[in-house]
Amino acid sequence: MASPEIEQLIGLLAKLPGLGPRSARRAVLYLLKRRESVMTPLAHLLETTAAAVQTCSTCGALDSTDPCAVCADPRRDALQICAVEEVGDLWALERSGTFKGTYHVIGGVLSALEGVGPEDLNIAPLVARAGEMPPGGEVILALSATVDGQTTAHYIGERLAGTGASVTRLAHGVPVGGELDYLDDGTLSAAMKARRPV
Amino acid sequence: MASPEIEQLIGLLAKLPGLGPRSARRAVLYLLKRRESVMTPLAHLLETTAAAVQTCSTCGALDSTDPCAVCADPRRDALQICAVEEVGDLWALERSGTFKGTYHVIGGVLSALEGVGPEDLNIAPLVARAGEMPPGGEVILALSATVDGQTTAHYIGERLAGTGASVTRLAHGVPVGGELDYLDDGTLSAAMKARRPV
Repeated sequence: MASPEIEQLIGLLAKLPGLGPRSARRAVLYLLKRRESVMTPLAHLLETTAAAVQTCSTCGALDSTDPCAVCADPRRDALQICAVEEVGDLWALERSGTFKGTYHVIGGVLSALEGVGPEDLNIAPLVARAGEMPPGGEVILALSATVDGQTTAHYIGERLAGTGASVTRLAHGVPVGGELDYLDDGTLSAAMKARRPV
Repeated sequence: MASPEIEQLIGLLAKLPGLGPRSARRAVLYLLKRRESVMTPLAHLLETTAAAVQTCSTCGALDSTDPCAVCADPRRDALQICAVEEVGDLWALERSGTFKGTYHVIGGVLSALEGVGPEDLNIAPLVARAGEMPPGGEVILALSATVDGQTTAHYIGERLAGTGASVTRLAHGVPVGGELDYLDDGTLSAAMKARRPV
């Protein structure tokens, strides 16, 4: 129906997470009506970003410099490494502004079902970094609170045992702003066990 | 947190209809992980499409040729013009494959509230096209079944009165696959009035 370029563009956009064929069509129409003000600048920005962005050789984050801005920042605490599954988790922690150490992107979780083994993940470099930490170093495992996430955290914890770094994990509990009524039993029981004096 | 290019890209994508800041971030991460296979091809496709696509000077559709593929196709019925609000509506009708005439994109609806008058819409060229139609010509008003859409259809109908073309509108009724229980009163009463022998 529409020209082949437009159809191809809809097809490409429809593959993005959060977009389907219908919303991709709406997005393409939006862009086609703003060819000079949005569509062409977006094309250029995609091209320059794709060319500029690289994987940080220290932590595995995506940034336009290598080492990334966090690894290169001397004000970040060298005694703390926060291990996360994906770059998106790193971004989320940075947005929260609570963590002042450095990161390590594992790149996923162990999964027997999907055939993801330790050698497929960025774990060995984390063990090496932990081994080179000064005394008092800490590795914080900020992995998903899913079965696979916790299996992976357990595995990484064992691998880090000989490095001298202490290993911690994020607290489980009631999300801030969350209503008890809607929480699952596992979270409620974790929150109850980890209760704190007020 | 992330590099300025990445932040800017997230900001641009977040403006697309159907995407917000959160889904734009996920989309950008998806792209950044597929820089060579998806991100760069997408950049090139956006650029070439933005450069190629133009507004059809006959019907107002967006295509990479002017006149557009529909207007240029000699197999399309020159005796039928279907007037639609937006290019997206034209695409929807083309996907349904039910219409073999040509189109006319009005570019919106009359709206006193938003200050959209007849001169802001692509109405005069439609009247001119209808006036040049051979005898037996028909203009089908496929505008939204909203108050503004119906006001616009009524206005266009009056403007077309002197052209000799017959003016029709899409049928109202129960959507195919729709359950009566969920239908609004207006649709139900329209479907009842327009009932057909089985």
